[in-house]
Amino acid sequence: MNIFAQRISSLRALMRAREWDAVILTGSDPHGSEYPAERYKQIQWLTGFTGEAADLVVTADHAGLWTDTRYFIQANRQLEGTGVELHKTRVPGQVLIPEWLAAYFEGQPEPVLAIDGATAGCSFVQDVLDAFSSPPTVVSSPDFINVLWEDRPGIPQTPVFTVESGSSREEKLAMLRDFCAARGADGILLTALDEIAWTLDVRASDIEYNPLVISYLLITADSASWFVLKGDVEDPDSERTFGLLADGGISVEPYDSVDEALADCAGMRICADPASLNWQLRSIADGNGIRLDCCKSPVGLAKAVKNPFEIAGMRSCHVRDGVAMVRFLHWLERSVQADRRVSEWDAAVRLREFRSEADGYTGDSFETISAYGPGAALPHYVTPSADAPLLEPSGLYLCDSGGQYTDGTTDITRTVPLGECTALEREDYTLVLKGHIDLAMAIFPEGTPGCRIDALAREPLWRFQRNFGHGTGHGVGFFLGVHEGPQDVRQNLNPVPLQAGMIISDEPGIYREGQHGVRHENLLLCVPKGQNEFGSWLGFEPLTLCPFDTSALDLDLLDKAEIEWLDAYHSLVFNTLSPFLDSETNKWLQQKCKKIATFVRCGLEPEGR
Amino acid sequence: MNIFAQRISSLRALMRAREWDAVILTGSDPHGSEYPAERYKQIQWLTGFTGEAADLVVTADHAGLWTDTRYFIQANRQLEGTGVELHKTRVPGQVLIPEWLAAYFEGQPEPVLAIDGATAGCSFVQDVLDAFSSPPTVVSSPDFINVLWEDRPGIPQTPVFTVESGSSREEKLAMLRDFCAARGADGILLTALDEIAWTLDVRASDIEYNPLVISYLLITADSASWFVLKGDVEDPDSERTFGLLADGGISVEPYDSVDEALADCAGMRICADPASLNWQLRSIADGNGIRLDCCKSPVGLAKAVKNPFEIAGMRSCHVRDGVAMVRFLHWLERSVQADRRVSEWDAAVRLREFRSEADGYTGDSFETISAYGPGAALPHYVTPSADAPLLEPSGLYLCDSGGQYTDGTTDITRTVPLGECTALEREDYTLVLKGHIDLAMAIFPEGTPGCRIDALAREPLWRFQRNFGHGTGHGVGFFLGVHEGPQDVRQNLNPVPLQAGMIISDEPGIYREGQHGVRHENLLLCVPKGQNEFGSWLGFEPLTLCPFDTSALDLDLLDKAEIEWLDAYHSLVFNTLSPFLDSETNKWLQQKCKKIATFVRCGLEPEGR
Repeated sequence: MNIFAQRISSLRALMRAREWDAVILTGSDPHGSEYPAERYKQIQWLTGFTGEAADLVVTADHAGLWTDTRYFIQANRQLEGTGVELHKTRVPGQVLIPEWLAAYFEGQPEPVLAIDGATAGCSFVQDVLDAFSSPPTVVSSPDFINVLWEDRPGIPQTPVFTVESGSSREEKLAMLRDFCAARGADGILLTALDEIAWTLDVRASDIEYNPLVISYLLITADSASWFVLKGDVEDPDSERTFGLLADGGISVEPYDSVDEALADCAGMRICADPASLNWQLRSIADGNGIRLDCCKSPVGLAKAVKNPFEIAGMRSCHVRDGVAMVRFLHWLERSVQADRRVSEWDAAVRLREFRSEADGYTGDSFETISAYGPGAALPHYVTPSADAPLLEPSGLYLCDSGGQYTDGTTDITRTVPLGECTALEREDYTLVLKGHIDLAMAIFPEGTPGCRIDALAREPLWRFQRNFGHGTGHGVGFFLGVHEGPQDVRQNLNPVPLQAGMIISDEPGIYREGQHGVRHENLLLCVPKGQNEFGSWLGFEPLTLCPFDTSALDLDLLDKAEIEWLDAYHSLVFNTLSPFLDSETNKWLQQKCKKIATFVRCGLEPEGR
Repeated sequence: MNIFAQRISSLRALMRAREWDAVILTGSDPHGSEYPAERYKQIQWLTGFTGEAADLVVTADHAGLWTDTRYFIQANRQLEGTGVELHKTRVPGQVLIPEWLAAYFEGQPEPVLAIDGATAGCSFVQDVLDAFSSPPTVVSSPDFINVLWEDRPGIPQTPVFTVESGSSREEKLAMLRDFCAARGADGILLTALDEIAWTLDVRASDIEYNPLVISYLLITADSASWFVLKGDVEDPDSERTFGLLADGGISVEPYDSVDEALADCAGMRICADPASLNWQLRSIADGNGIRLDCCKSPVGLAKAVKNPFEIAGMRSCHVRDGVAMVRFLHWLERSVQADRRVSEWDAAVRLREFRSEADGYTGDSFETISAYGPGAALPHYVTPSADAPLLEPSGLYLCDSGGQYTDGTTDITRTVPLGECTALEREDYTLVLKGHIDLAMAIFPEGTPGCRIDALAREPLWRFQRNFGHGTGHGVGFFLGVHEGPQDVRQNLNPVPLQAGMIISDEPGIYREGQHGVRHENLLLCVPKGQNEFGSWLGFEPLTLCPFDTSALDLDLLDKAEIEWLDAYHSLVFNTLSPFLDSETNKWLQQKCKKIATFVRCGLEPEGR
């Protein structure tokens, strides 16, 4: 019997013992993190499904896994033999977990639904409750999986250290207290790890790709308590950090004691963001007469608008990241031309080596996508470590990667022609770059949300009836998560206006199943562009410094302004990076950054005017 | 004493007699119409303010008029000496009527607020109620103004006639009944005049610029009642229409009897759209145990997506409208060159004459904006009938006008160089046309709302840090209102997707106070552009047929695709209109539609590639 089928059946045994009618598990951690730590990969342990976004429901006679379009193929493969059924989301006619459960238990009085309240978001559980006409009984049993998962990893606990951010903890705490005062609230509970790291200027490596500390932060008018695992780590950095915070009036408490601390707030009005508040904490609040003020956390916007110190750091780490990328691309070109057998995996490993030689590098900001040919047609391709496809000296290679540095975070995609390209490859390559440039060049009035300029990056593709299914841009943290809000540039009508100091990625693409994929990505800094009688203006400056290969361009598809932008960008790249490169790499970069064209007036021949 | 000050003081006398603490009047009619009939211009009668959008509040010691940015100058002028104070809306820190009233009566127990419930929208009154911590007493006294306004005009009653629309009343009633059934409702009350006209294929001239019948329509599973003034009109068309409807199972009832008819629906669930439902009817529903299902009326969307018959009609009337426009522009050019003393007003009158010679023309679709030079810098300029500015043989003249035809509605703006133009005028003229063309050329995926492509029309202006404050496009009715929803193309994040068969205007502009204004407007029909692996595609076809004057263009600012679009548009205009023009006008049009340029490959000189 399949190991996962066995685990599900022992879960069912537990359910019978505890008289649970259903178990609901979400793929999240207690903080709603994008990348949960190993300990919280309960669904992977139970079902073998390794995709990022999945939720699981198990009843006496049904086990179902809910995931979206990106993971259908993978889920079908990985769930084989487990007896777990795939429920598709983000498809027309989808039936989500709340509706499915309500229908399943239709007519059955007070079914007992068991959840791990710590890893279940409060909004999700509320949706489940709302779906039932007569409310079911929800039993929250944190970590019940431990009974079955004997060697379950503990809560990660890595050395904690502080970073400079250009603004003091005092200022940030004051901002949060002002926020509460303005709402007539007595305090705020921060549960999102990047928001806590930003507020306290602390970092660690508890979570893959994210330099975060697993913790909670509770702030009232006269107190600030940080709930974190400090126990048995004998680490000077951590000790220093804890001491520093204590001196700053921030008491450092055991991670688990957040429950009692919250319960002690009886009668108080406490702000919390439902996007990252788990059901366990919400129940504690509700059960102890706390007036929970569910609202968007003010940290999100404050964190998104970078201050001068953070901007300087982002610029600086992008120079070092650019150097690593240029050395990598140079190495790649030589290796492929020299016909060394380089696989997608080898390339990713080599890129990591180049980055790790850069000052302040602490790790990658997400798992590198290193994809050749058809692999690149999957926007979320995962490079296999074993027998990864080899790079051939023709067609397109796509590499999407990023680094975490103590002074910033990077995220860059380059699509590289490894030799001869087909006409279609050149056309797609050029149209995507055209879209990238049109967004990068955009000037727009203050108050404009990203969704209103998303079309600027797509219109050159639309005109040829091509498009891409993902968003065009996301926010990026300062030595924090590579994906952050509240701003973005995408199809959804997100009303948050872009502001000077915000960072967004600019990453249009075209994907042709079984053929090739193209994506070009720079990070852009939103900057003021002055004022006039028509209002105040914003625009972008590229942070990312790395050439786009011009050999695959179809110049007829670019207009004058686009070519001028590209030439100017390449001279910026060369002038900034060359001081840090050996002469051979330098020569190579100079060639790559060559002005691609001089322009004579666009050839209009007026007729009889 | 100022006549309006007198009227306000007699209103205060009435208030004292009836023990009202405040009177609230809105600028609307009982159907929430865009252009209320004379009878409903109560605010104009009381205050002398002639602007479209205004609301009035009168208390014992304060009289305030609320209106938006467009009307500040006009309000300040017209309210002088009336004792009525201007309250500015659509400005930062605005205090709207509900908040203002709540603050004014703070602490006073149960103030009595009097409204004309028939002309007050139910949502507006609800907002007022919600603004108070302890609810005030709202007295609804329909037509109370009659006591003061002795010669108040009656409810307009013009001959009613039927139109062909390509779909039968039966189909439309069936659609509405299906809508109710799907929501578990017993019926629907239509209150918006254009929705009723569309549903019954009836038209009249009760409202200026809008061929509408003042009426209500109540539809249940087994009945349909049209409440309309039919009384004393001895008119064959009307008689025929009423008979026709009766034969179709639609009972024609007196306008006022809608109150009893609604009251008779006790216990039923009735759909109504709060956007056009007045407070009076809502109170009757609430007071008689009717379960009001406030929802967006399904007529809006159905009406917006034109059927083949309506599309054919729109195309046909745009040919006749184009002929009138071309004859007008030809006349204008000759008159100005011949130095005849043509004023803005003369031009508007002449244009109306040309239109009135077209088959099926029943009137203008809105008040023509005929503005020369600085006047054109006001997007909502009203041409003075007396001493209107004269057109000089230099600079820019802007004309925004439209016609109502029995087979469609038109809306067109042309900006005409009357002679030498400054470099800035030429630049603005060209950039606005560039924006117009970029939207007209757009290809976009099915499901795209207009707000996502609005930036395509603005980006060419934004790049030069210029912009315009109004929306880029609105829907247009089929021999109905010139402004209709639910789709639009503007800054607001309206989620309604554009669909094949919808019509939108494409009218970007640039306005420089005291100098000049530029606006270029065509109506565009949304059409399918095929399907491929990337999805289904939509685009636009111009309905409007009239040349853009190319003599004011700065060709360096247009790219190849834009110039090709313009040349193709001009040959379409010439080929379609010339058969209907006399030889002289024809020669003139041929010159205006001349291909402006041949193109040699965009002059790239590749460097060492």
